[in-house]
Amino acid sequence: MSKIIDFQVDPSRYRHWRVTYEGDVANLFMDVDEAGGLFDGYELKLNSYDLGVDIELADIVQRMRFEHPEIHAVVLQSGKERVFCAGANIRMLAGAAHAHKVNFCKFTNETRNTFEAAGAESGQHYICAIRGACAGGGYELALACDHIMLADDGSSNVALPEVPLLAVLPGTGGLTRVTDKRKVRRDLADVFCSTEEGVKGKRAVEWRLVDEIVPNSKFAETVSARAKEIAGKSRRNGDGKGVQLTPLARTIGEDGSLTYSTVEVEIDRAKGLATITISGPDEDAPATIAALHEQGAASWILRAARELDDAILHLRLNELETGTLVIRTQGDPEKVAAHEAVLFANRDHWLANEILLYWKRVLKRVDLTSRSLVALVEPGSCFAGMLAELLFAVDRSYMAEGDFEGDNRAVATITLTDGNFGPFPMSNGLTRLQTRFLGEPEKVDGARERVGEALEAFDANALGLVTFAFDDIDWEDEVRIFLEERTSFSPDAMTGMEANLRFAGPETMETRIFGRLTAWQNWIFQRPNAGGEDGALRRYGTGVRGNYDMRRV
Amino acid sequence: MSKIIDFQVDPSRYRHWRVTYEGDVANLFMDVDEAGGLFDGYELKLNSYDLGVDIELADIVQRMRFEHPEIHAVVLQSGKERVFCAGANIRMLAGAAHAHKVNFCKFTNETRNTFEAAGAESGQHYICAIRGACAGGGYELALACDHIMLADDGSSNVALPEVPLLAVLPGTGGLTRVTDKRKVRRDLADVFCSTEEGVKGKRAVEWRLVDEIVPNSKFAETVSARAKEIAGKSRRNGDGKGVQLTPLARTIGEDGSLTYSTVEVEIDRAKGLATITISGPDEDAPATIAALHEQGAASWILRAARELDDAILHLRLNELETGTLVIRTQGDPEKVAAHEAVLFANRDHWLANEILLYWKRVLKRVDLTSRSLVALVEPGSCFAGMLAELLFAVDRSYMAEGDFEGDNRAVATITLTDGNFGPFPMSNGLTRLQTRFLGEPEKVDGARERVGEALEAFDANALGLVTFAFDDIDWEDEVRIFLEERTSFSPDAMTGMEANLRFAGPETMETRIFGRLTAWQNWIFQRPNAGGEDGALRRYGTGVRGNYDMRRV
Repeated sequence: MSKIIDFQVDPSRYRHWRVTYEGDVANLFMDVDEAGGLFDGYELKLNSYDLGVDIELADIVQRMRFEHPEIHAVVLQSGKERVFCAGANIRMLAGAAHAHKVNFCKFTNETRNTFEAAGAESGQHYICAIRGACAGGGYELALACDHIMLADDGSSNVALPEVPLLAVLPGTGGLTRVTDKRKVRRDLADVFCSTEEGVKGKRAVEWRLVDEIVPNSKFAETVSARAKEIAGKSRRNGDGKGVQLTPLARTIGEDGSLTYSTVEVEIDRAKGLATITISGPDEDAPATIAALHEQGAASWILRAARELDDAILHLRLNELETGTLVIRTQGDPEKVAAHEAVLFANRDHWLANEILLYWKRVLKRVDLTSRSLVALVEPGSCFAGMLAELLFAVDRSYMAEGDFEGDNRAVATITLTDGNFGPFPMSNGLTRLQTRFLGEPEKVDGARERVGEALEAFDANALGLVTFAFDDIDWEDEVRIFLEERTSFSPDAMTGMEANLRFAGPETMETRIFGRLTAWQNWIFQRPNAGGEDGALRRYGTGVRGNYDMRRV
Repeated sequence: MSKIIDFQVDPSRYRHWRVTYEGDVANLFMDVDEAGGLFDGYELKLNSYDLGVDIELADIVQRMRFEHPEIHAVVLQSGKERVFCAGANIRMLAGAAHAHKVNFCKFTNETRNTFEAAGAESGQHYICAIRGACAGGGYELALACDHIMLADDGSSNVALPEVPLLAVLPGTGGLTRVTDKRKVRRDLADVFCSTEEGVKGKRAVEWRLVDEIVPNSKFAETVSARAKEIAGKSRRNGDGKGVQLTPLARTIGEDGSLTYSTVEVEIDRAKGLATITISGPDEDAPATIAALHEQGAASWILRAARELDDAILHLRLNELETGTLVIRTQGDPEKVAAHEAVLFANRDHWLANEILLYWKRVLKRVDLTSRSLVALVEPGSCFAGMLAELLFAVDRSYMAEGDFEGDNRAVATITLTDGNFGPFPMSNGLTRLQTRFLGEPEKVDGARERVGEALEAFDANALGLVTFAFDDIDWEDEVRIFLEERTSFSPDAMTGMEANLRFAGPETMETRIFGRLTAWQNWIFQRPNAGGEDGALRRYGTGVRGNYDMRRV
């Protein structure tokens, strides 16, 4: 699996999905092309999916929000007869490297979360209309929808057969959504999750696995009526024209470096480092929301979000050995704050709202990236507002103190804005500053009083906004020594440590999916009973079941 | 590691700990016998510990509550010069099987939790007085205390060096307590947890890692004064004589079976099954709290708790292949409820309180047992009150419906008591019925209305108290087929599924320790970078550091 996995796609290239639009309802058909796998060695039979299928899906959900302000409800359905979706492709999983499996699950989880976010935050509600077999990752797609409808035809069913069949867990939030979202009684959940053949008809409703069952003869009309009803209740305020998400300008160098319009990624594979530099805007902020709308995908603030998002995804899947990501910025912090301020001033406009929500998702993607994250606040940097938020997303930050000899860029500063106090919560429901200052909540108020100031190192340090500050005598050595040490540690221990330290405080369904559930799944993927030569995953389809070491851990 | 690990110990046999008592303060000295390891192949140098050391510690904490009602504060300190505790013994970890490591960590976690519970629930507060190096599991012992004091002598320090040194996580709640209990700022926690040499002096207080530092010259007197002060504020109501925890009557058969006075465990290794049968009391409940106090450890209700606790621990560590535990009871449910009622009627008496709290811990131990848990509610059974609570702890329950031909025992019933509505919360802070009925909270009220009734299968099923009910025609086949199927599944997948389905709803520090943290730790233990031939754990002490595969997952 050495080819580059590209997260950029557009409707003209979809192989696995179709979307039709009717007024305020979109119909989203899953119709996976068997021959369209991302890699060789497997066929995507029975609407099973791999990462490529999910990349298209993520693109659809994203475009729906930006390009289709008029859509209030999306009906997810199968484009095939007799099968809704068989879940993640087993042969793909059996053949994939551990890191690919884990990152595949993380991306699919993030995409499922965007279904729920679209409903909750943008009034675009996902409805799942199931006819045929809906198993594993198929049912996890359904679980991520706001409403699940199941054909009552004697055969359509929902199932999570991973445990009995494959000796792994449902990998895309299944168990957590069964208990926390659907609130299925735990012993019934136990029966459901250990039954290959799943549950159908009335029992599926009684057990809270689906919201309603519908006779086959009335299925299409009932689904359509339900979609209209749900669309009618939506609070989406998407009047006006959509914003086209035009292709990103991106160059990938031979050394792996990435160049976008506002983001640059330098890669040093030998050292295990990737340095991401985000450039602030040169141009002034759009004067009005109309002007921002006019700029659309060309606006700095939307471009930067899209490019950073793509860079993070690219690094996650394609640059496994860059265990440490160094985040830098360069530019005018006042301009960054001004561009962000346009969004706050126009929060009731759908586009401003969508861009804010997108930044929220990108920042969460950063939180959830299993790499050591470091920020360098250097002379000439522009950590303001949502870019300053990156300082509170990283594991550690280093700030340059005062003038640097021979460097005529502006002294390093940090500028807090309203963006650091609410609009970009982490998956634990708190802002990054609230999480940072769990033990000293008064420091959040202290920071808030300094909104709008360009805080130099002394103040930033006193306010607790950075980990360390060094002057130009120590800076280079301190940063170098730290990075050398960091990149020498075991990457697994780093992943585990960071996954625990980053998410203090309350847990939510989202943190549970990425924390508890993912960690158990990673463990199981690694165990011989699942992934080994004689494990269930490898033996799937051979007619011989997995040979298990029966000792309990 | 095939010898039987015995969780029963008493002060006459301690090798690693000493306790002295002065008024309402106990001094607990850790003074590990290097030669006293549970297994061959390692020496317990520098106050490092293995499971045997922790079994003694757990015994001390338990006896402190029952045998020393007068104790309000316990000062944990080192009996050695220059070292407080070096943590879990690395050579032991390097040599131990994966299952042993995981179960070792689980038990030490449960023991640390009892420190906190003793303070919060019984007014026995643990104070940690650190002089010398306090690293890894040593600092995790400190973290579990209510107050941490550190000698300010230029060398005494606290450290979590696992990540940089051993490529594993601190295994006993360290990361979670650093973020959730001590509320250390996450970037400082990152620095602390990736620094071998730890933190000392003022910085340890500033970073919230300890509560106070004390000059060496005043250490003993300040610790003593602080202990008196904390003891003076305790709300422990332990007047009267303690209750001696006399040795358990236990026989271990050649086939592995266990016989206690109220608990029997039958083991079928070939089938992977252990059947635990708890016998209800024959005798009437003690008429008064004085009578209960007089019976002490001989009382049915304390005996049953101790025996069940010991049986669970024994099975966890010594019977790895019995992946499924079947829980049965036999006896008179009214008598069970009557014995339990004595505790509720006397909650303000320290002994009644301690027995209730002990049952709470035992039931949590059941929740956290990585085995498939099944309850059979058969004719003649006595699932009442805290025994009925077992029905809501298991993954599934099967109930016999009506008369069984040729069986003259009483028809199977379930009796709810006040015990099912508050005194035995799970680690998520909810009762088991609240957790069970997260999606239908009104069912908790429905169940509450039936307190005291002997509910037969029809009612129990309608109330949602059991998973399935079968009459005598189907019973045997249904149970047999289920058990055959269950015991054929991959034990890892079962562990992961159960760990996710059992703890719906809110998360607490406790659930995070056993969920998120433990799962990541298990994953890392399994990875070659830690446990492999060239991994850090195996190479520790050789002078050669671990050879890491640097790819991030």
